[in-house]
Amino acid sequence: MKLKMMYSFLNSDINIIEKKLEETIQADSLLLKQASLHTLQAGGKRIRPVFVLLAGKFGHYDINVMKNVAVALELIHMASLVHDDVIDDADLRRGQPTVKAKWDNKIAMYTGDFVFALALELMANLDRAEAHKILADTMVEVTVGEIQQIRDKYRFNQNLRDYLRRIKRKTALLIAASCQIGAIAADVEEAIHRKLYRFGYYVGMSYQITDDILDFVAKEEELGKPAGSDLLQGNITAPALFALENAANRIEIEKVHEKMESADIQSIITLIKQSGAIEKSVELSDRYLSKALAILEELPANKAKKTLKDIARFIGRRKF
Amino acid sequence: MKLKMMYSFLNSDINIIEKKLEETIQADSLLLKQASLHTLQAGGKRIRPVFVLLAGKFGHYDINVMKNVAVALELIHMASLVHDDVIDDADLRRGQPTVKAKWDNKIAMYTGDFVFALALELMANLDRAEAHKILADTMVEVTVGEIQQIRDKYRFNQNLRDYLRRIKRKTALLIAASCQIGAIAADVEEAIHRKLYRFGYYVGMSYQITDDILDFVAKEEELGKPAGSDLLQGNITAPALFALENAANRIEIEKVHEKMESADIQSIITLIKQSGAIEKSVELSDRYLSKALAILEELPANKAKKTLKDIARFIGRRKF
Repeated sequence: MKLKMMYSFLNSDINIIEKKLEETIQADSLLLKQASLHTLQAGGKRIRPVFVLLAGKFGHYDINVMKNVAVALELIHMASLVHDDVIDDADLRRGQPTVKAKWDNKIAMYTGDFVFALALELMANLDRAEAHKILADTMVEVTVGEIQQIRDKYRFNQNLRDYLRRIKRKTALLIAASCQIGAIAADVEEAIHRKLYRFGYYVGMSYQITDDILDFVAKEEELGKPAGSDLLQGNITAPALFALENAANRIEIEKVHEKMESADIQSIITLIKQSGAIEKSVELSDRYLSKALAILEELPANKAKKTLKDIARFIGRRKF
Repeated sequence: MKLKMMYSFLNSDINIIEKKLEETIQADSLLLKQASLHTLQAGGKRIRPVFVLLAGKFGHYDINVMKNVAVALELIHMASLVHDDVIDDADLRRGQPTVKAKWDNKIAMYTGDFVFALALELMANLDRAEAHKILADTMVEVTVGEIQQIRDKYRFNQNLRDYLRRIKRKTALLIAASCQIGAIAADVEEAIHRKLYRFGYYVGMSYQITDDILDFVAKEEELGKPAGSDLLQGNITAPALFALENAANRIEIEKVHEKMESADIQSIITLIKQSGAIEKSVELSDRYLSKALAILEELPANKAKKTLKDIARFIGRRKF
C-alpha cells in the first residue's frame, strides 16, 4: 500500500495544507520566493503535517487551527533541510538541485532563516504556551544535533550511542514535537499527548535509521541522489557503524575522506552490504518501531490510531 | 554623558540581564557554547534589552518577566549578526574576530540558528500571543532585508528608498519590536505600546544611519573594524548614496569592487567626506530622531520616558 493511501480519509485536509504551504511561501523578495518555492516543490512525504493532523484527531479537531500547525512543522523541516544541505555540501535532494547548489550557501542560509520565520508566524496563531515551549526546546536540540553532525564527520571512532543521540536530535524530536503539538492544538489531554510524543520519537528514530539504510541499499533514481552519499559526506550512520565493528572492514571504511569521488565508494558500499551491517541496522530500526507500536496500543481506538499504525509500519520498513 | 550613565537607575536589572545572557548560552556542544560565548563577550551596547526594560516601565514591570524578553531580543540580535558576518565575509566585529573568521561559515550558520532557538525558548515563557506574532512578523522582515542586502551589493544604481527599506528591515523593526514587546510583557495598554513601537522604529532608523555615517568618519580603533568596511563589502549606505548624486563622484565610487583592498578605498572615503554627503546623512538621521522625540512627547511622563529621550539623542548623534 502506498503511503498516501493510508491517510486517504485526510485527503481534503492534506490538500488544504498543500495550498497553504504555497500561499505561505510568498515574499517581497523574488529571490527568496523562488528559492523557497523551489524547495517546497521538490516534494517530500509531508510526514510531519500528517502526524500533526492525525494527532489532532484525538481531540477537538478544527482544520482552521490544525492547518497552521501542520504547515509550520513542515516549513521548519524544510528550513532545516536547506541549512543541512549547506553543511553537507549536497548538490541534490529528491532529484532536484539544492538551494545551495542552484544559488549559493549564503542564499541558502537566509532561505532557511526566512522559511523558519514564516513557520513562527503561523505558529503565533496558536495560543498555547506549552506548544511554543515544546517547539523552541526542539529547535535548540535540532541545532545542537546539526553541530554534532559537523563535529562527528569522518570521525570513525564514534559509537552507536553518538549516532543515536545525533538522529534523535536531527529527526526524531521534530517528529515527536509534530505529534505532541498537533495534539495540544486540539486540546488533547496531557496523558495522551505525552504518549503521542513518545510515539513520534520512536517512529522518528526508526524512520531515520531506515533512511540511513536506504542510502546504502536503494538505487540512485529512488533516492534522488547517489547511493552512499551519507558516507561520502562523512556522515557515519548505523550501517557503517555496524560494519566498522570488524577490524578488516574498518581499515577499508576509514579510507573514506572528504575529497573522495562517488565512484570510489562503490567497493565500500559492497563491503558494508556483505558485512551483515544492513541486517543489524534493520533490527535496530525494528526495535524502535516495536516501541512505537506498543505505545499506540495505549491510545484510544479511532481511525487516526489505525492510520498511525499503518504509517509507522510503512516508514519503518519502506524500500525508498 | 556615557550611554550607560543614562540608564544607571536600571543598573541592577541590567546586571541580571548580563548574567542571564551568560547562563542561557549553555550547550551540550562545547563548540556551540564557545562560538556563542565568543559572540556574547565581544560586547555590544545591549540597546535592545535596555529598550525592552524601559518600555516595560510604562506598565506593570516585573523583572522576572522582563528579563526573559530582554535577553531574548538581545540573542535574536546576536544571531542575526552572526549570520550577517557570513554574508559580509566580515572578519572583525567590535575588534574581535567573527565566528565565521574564528571557525567557519557553517559553524556560524548553526551558531546563529542555535542562539535564535535559545531566544525562542525564553520567549516561550511569555504568555502573550500578540508579542509572539509581532516577533515572528519582524523575523520574516529581517530575513527579507538580509536577502535584499545581498541583492543590492555593489548595485550602484539603487536609490535612497532602497536603502531606507533595507535598514528598516535590517535594524529599525527589531528595535521597534523590542520596545513594543517589552511594553506588552508589562501589560501596557495598546495605545501606548503602539507609540513605543513607532518610537523604536524612528530611533532604529536614526541609529542605523548614524552607524553608516560612522563607518566613514570614525577611526578604526573606535569602529573595531577598518573604516569604509561597508562600502568595501559592497553595502551602499546613505553617505555613498548622497555622494553618488554627483556624476564625477559616481565614476570614482563605481570603481569599488569585490576584490578591492582596504588601502585602495581611502581616496574614495576622502571624496565622500568632501562631497557634503556626510552632512546630508546627518540631516537624514536627524529627521528620524525628531520624529522619535515627537512621539515620546505623547507618552506619560516618567523616568523611563526621560531616559528614552536621552538615549535617543545619544544614539542618533553618537561619535562611535
